[in-house]
Amino acid sequence: MFNEKLDEIVERIEENYNDEIIAFNNVDRRFPNKDAIIQIILDLRRVMFPRYFGDEAPCGAGPKYFIGDTLTRVEEALHREVFEALMFRDRKVKSREAVEAETSSICSDFFYKIPEIQQLLLKDVQAAFDGDPAAGSKAEIIYCYPGFFAIFVYRLAHELALHDVPLIPRIMSEYAHAETGVDIGAKAQIGEYFFIDHAVGVVIGETTTIGDHVKIYQGVTLGALSTRGGQSLAGVKRHPTVEDNVTIYSNASILGGQTVIGAHSVIGGSAFVTESVPPHSRVSLANPEVTVRIREPKPGEFEI
Amino acid sequence: MFNEKLDEIVERIEENYNDEIIAFNNVDRRFPNKDAIIQIILDLRRVMFPRYFGDEAPCGAGPKYFIGDTLTRVEEALHREVFEALMFRDRKVKSREAVEAETSSICSDFFYKIPEIQQLLLKDVQAAFDGDPAAGSKAEIIYCYPGFFAIFVYRLAHELALHDVPLIPRIMSEYAHAETGVDIGAKAQIGEYFFIDHAVGVVIGETTTIGDHVKIYQGVTLGALSTRGGQSLAGVKRHPTVEDNVTIYSNASILGGQTVIGAHSVIGGSAFVTESVPPHSRVSLANPEVTVRIREPKPGEFEI
Amino acid sequence: MFNEKLDEIVERIEENYNDEIIAFNNVDRRFPNKDAIIQIILDLRRVMFPRYFGDEAPCGAGPKYFIGDTLTRVEEALHREVFEALMFRDRKVKSREAVEAETSSICSDFFYKIPEIQQLLLKDVQAAFDGDPAAGSKAEIIYCYPGFFAIFVYRLAHELALHDVPLIPRIMSEYAHAETGVDIGAKAQIGEYFFIDHAVGVVIGETTTIGDHVKIYQGVTLGALSTRGGQSLAGVKRHPTVEDNVTIYSNASILGGQTVIGAHSVIGGSAFVTESVPPHSRVSLANPEVTVRIREPKPGEFEI
Repeated sequence: MFNEKLDEIVERIEENYNDEIIAFNNVDRRFPNKDAIIQIILDLRRVMFPRYFGDEAPCGAGPKYFIGDTLTRVEEALHREVFEALMFRDRKVKSREAVEAETSSICSDFFYKIPEIQQLLLKDVQAAFDGDPAAGSKAEIIYCYPGFFAIFVYRLAHELALHDVPLIPRIMSEYAHAETGVDIGAKAQIGEYFFIDHAVGVVIGETTTIGDHVKIYQGVTLGALSTRGGQSLAGVKRHPTVEDNVTIYSNASILGGQTVIGAHSVIGGSAFVTESVPPHSRVSLANPEVTVRIREPKPGEFEI
Repeated sequence: MFNEKLDEIVERIEENYNDEIIAFNNVDRRFPNKDAIIQIILDLRRVMFPRYFGDEAPCGAGPKYFIGDTLTRVEEALHREVFEALMFRDRKVKSREAVEAETSSICSDFFYKIPEIQQLLLKDVQAAFDGDPAAGSKAEIIYCYPGFFAIFVYRLAHELALHDVPLIPRIMSEYAHAETGVDIGAKAQIGEYFFIDHAVGVVIGETTTIGDHVKIYQGVTLGALSTRGGQSLAGVKRHPTVEDNVTIYSNASILGGQTVIGAHSVIGGSAFVTESVPPHSRVSLANPEVTVRIREPKPGEFEI
Repeated sequence: MFNEKLDEIVERIEENYNDEIIAFNNVDRRFPNKDAIIQIILDLRRVMFPRYFGDEAPCGAGPKYFIGDTLTRVEEALHREVFEALMFRDRKVKSREAVEAETSSICSDFFYKIPEIQQLLLKDVQAAFDGDPAAGSKAEIIYCYPGFFAIFVYRLAHELALHDVPLIPRIMSEYAHAETGVDIGAKAQIGEYFFIDHAVGVVIGETTTIGDHVKIYQGVTLGALSTRGGQSLAGVKRHPTVEDNVTIYSNASILGGQTVIGAHSVIGGSAFVTESVPPHSRVSLANPEVTVRIREPKPGEFEI
């Protein structure tokens, strides 16, 4: 039965290929390669935290050759992907030579920032260790913590987002999102000593600003009040600002581009905040008490 | 020490194998193959969105051979798995021939729907682009958005669920769940132009009905009021109905099989809804204000 | 441009390697191997649920050889990893011989518990089947349910945590966390017939105590009231106690080490509980009603 219908099915799919999104015949449109981008992330992790991840980094001769060789290979790979990503967007408006020059400049800037990003990450590890009584050691954080992995990927993706590279920052942040349940818009601005505990369900929108020494728990949303404006809101500041030394407990939501959480504030679990609060605020649910009834249930009864 | 205890350990495990769930000696019980089912999903994605996923789809001769060849191979693979799944459930009550005939009929129907599902997915892409200011292009949605991937897998799993195929729809939806954090019951009914932003933590129960042009954010639950009835509730409508043009913001819960969200309604973030609301409703938390206290904390102090 | 800067980049990264966390030159610090630990988990799953996971377990000669051979290989692998983990922590204070003896004792105890853990897991499957109207069969739970997989990994990790093995319980629980979105501290104490439905976003802190016949839904946090004490809180009871026969619906939070949820209680969806409740309590949101306004929106309007 399948065989009899196959010709018709093939024809109908072929027709769908004419849709401008699929654009099967648009041969010069190429996508950056996801697997290659993931490999770049993992290789940079090996350079920044050698011998943590089943690593061959040799100790005898010192690390110079290991670092230089790995970076050279990663640069080649990233160069290829950034070029494809820029061509994907700009192939109709720029020459290959112009895109090639832009790619070289972006890659050079990116790698020049790597030692600095490594320093930032060491501070993030410190923040996690200071902030989590369950952390057995700093090594455990680097080796196992999903929140730290999400921040690591964000700090790389952010550098490319600053250079307005299309697609690759999104591919990176969605990789971290899939691995950890943390969705950080690559364009978000996040300060030093940042820690996300338990990770899953955190969303940090792309126009969010976060200061230094901020700690966030599972399920926290730093989001928009409304997105009903759709594409007309692209680039508009629609996510909150969180100042230094703020702690945001689990499942709290802070919404809106005008919302500022003042420094040294603590936002309680499940709080829902849509207006600014001054520094040193303690914000908690207005009615944290819940209704408690006590009685024995009847068998099979439906209730909340 | 391990060696001395090994015989005893082996014996006790062997005894456990007599449990009816493990049923080691039940040689004709075979499971559909998870890896094969995942491959079917990925191959169908390549057919529907050629040249997006590291794809070898050739442009020169047109896409006919690529589509026909891929579908033929996928049909063989799906046929094998559907047959195993039906035998798993029905081997004591139906002949191999009857199951074989049923398998052919299901597969034929399934593939005949593929061009239509592809059309539906193009509409879902449009909904995501219109609904998310952070989307750089429609291609980015197809290539990167976990919410779109979850919907893609749901639309495939749903077709098999409609034919009451056991296990496979669940394997498909749990694969998407693991990849994206979105858990959509394969039996749920979902209309056109559906968009899930940020994905993680969304649960859509299997008796949910969703209309057209609905937008849902991270952490939304469309769930049951209670499941204390257990297996006696199997098949009973216990999840809500969401009509056309409804937006449900992050972490809102809508519970109960009698609960209907009227068309054109907006459900605010973290709202908890257990009763129907009429069309054009704006639902928000009753006490969105939270308690704010302001003072400097003492060092080391514990508080929310 | 990259080439001209490479020497400087390499030097700055090399300097960072002196940080005590990276400690590149500390050649005797070795990490347990993550991939090997994941393989141990998957192999133990094959032993406990033979022929479920694409399995070669032979039926003809009975399962004795299959069980004995698999356990022997898994013991060798686990022995190697436990030894590395203990050396990682204790290499400066214990001899290799002492660590070797401790490793043997731990592994022996661990494998002796396997048949008992298998029995516990069969009870967890029963709880899931009784608790979820959407479960088509018990086999479906073993084969597909992420909540069951998270519990399976927890029950293994917990045994090693009881012996105070460093790193490995965390690696195991973060593996389950990444696969399922469920984060269970390996030191948490969890009774029989435990079920987690829909899985994603559940956090169970490491000092939580859970009784028998407890059912938990997506997004539930069993957490600490505050972690501002940081490392000074390590080991302190800071997560709640949940007694027998309690159901906790989606997105509820129960916080604090002094908080006890009495037996036979039901905690409603999105409830936020920071104080103890007596047995047979029904806890629900204080203001489950939300504010509903009804009117037609103006085009392009921003609102929640």
